[in-house]
Amino acid sequence: MKLYTHPLSTYARRVTMAALEKGIELETVVVDMAAREHRGEAYKKLNPYGRVPTLVDGDLVLYESTAILEYLEDRFPSPPLVPEDAADRARTRMHMKLCDLQLTPQTSTIIFPKRFIPKDRWRLDAMEKAKQEIEAHLAILDRELEGKTWLVAERFTLAELAYAPFLDFLGLMEIAPPPNVGSWAARMLARPSAQATKPPL
Amino acid sequence: MKLYTHPLSTYARRVTMAALEKGIELETVVVDMAAREHRGEAYKKLNPYGRVPTLVDGDLVLYESTAILEYLEDRFPSPPLVPEDAADRARTRMHMKLCDLQLTPQTSTIIFPKRFIPKDRWRLDAMEKAKQEIEAHLAILDRELEGKTWLVAERFTLAELAYAPFLDFLGLMEIAPPPNVGSWAARMLARPSAQATKPPL
Repeated sequence: MKLYTHPLSTYARRVTMAALEKGIELETVVVDMAAREHRGEAYKKLNPYGRVPTLVDGDLVLYESTAILEYLEDRFPSPPLVPEDAADRARTRMHMKLCDLQLTPQTSTIIFPKRFIPKDRWRLDAMEKAKQEIEAHLAILDRELEGKTWLVAERFTLAELAYAPFLDFLGLMEIAPPPNVGSWAARMLARPSAQATKPPL
Repeated sequence: MKLYTHPLSTYARRVTMAALEKGIELETVVVDMAAREHRGEAYKKLNPYGRVPTLVDGDLVLYESTAILEYLEDRFPSPPLVPEDAADRARTRMHMKLCDLQLTPQTSTIIFPKRFIPKDRWRLDAMEKAKQEIEAHLAILDRELEGKTWLVAERFTLAELAYAPFLDFLGLMEIAPPPNVGSWAARMLARPSAQATKPPL
């Protein structure tokens, strides 16, 4: 299995964390995003949307990190990262989707400029709106996490893997998480799979 | 099982189509969106994001249409709407996600004003940009559909259910689909499940 990735990609980090959690060896190919290799013809033949990660497993060329997470779970079910109960599996998928609606685009709106664009070109209005949306989302999550160790069932799941790389940027975004979210984020980011994949920036 | 829904919701239509494909009887509760019931305190206790659809099945309160589709598949596996092969299941999920990244927000940007907002308040620049993004996406889909009846494997899957309600708006969006997408859309929209759920507007 080959993973096209980049050490600064938050989406790719979900997959490398999952591989570490499950003990899957992935051959990684770093796409030179600084040189815009992901937008070049060769890479776009693999992934026409020009994004990382992309997983190649035999004939299968798979992109979109959440689809890759589910595929790894299907192929390597142990240790499980989804609950056994159908209702809890459904909740896991709901939270993965909510993460990608309510947190990840907003995080990109804030951190992409902070990491890669000179400050005089930041779109401050869009960044402020994104921050407000994240804070509203974290307030909802905080209520759902009350009294819980993990978001769904009693198990670290794909829902945590979806959230972890993005919650690692709360500091850079200057967002102070509400208490339950803060301790939940600390728990997931303390795992060896998170420590081993911490981005250099 | 109770589905909170609205006849004009494209996301809810995915779920009602799936229920018809599988012969599942859902008790439907129409949320009065014109009166902003979905933004009211009572509904937001059920779904804090204030959107439809929401599925309630015993203790499970589930939102996000793609998570609901997967749950119905888990609970009522026959007739199957996901492929048996793990790689094809992964492709199905990838396409469901791509639909929600490359088509559904852009479609909302165009059709929400066209259906519900006076023309002098339309944001024409955003609508034009959305149209260009949809056309770029459909061009990619058209290549992937070459020689195929359905997007994944030889079977109508959740990928088609994700796309169908949105492709039904190509006419209103004044987008002429490329040929393979056009015939694929016609095939899915001819199904009884699509005919029975066609929105009044």
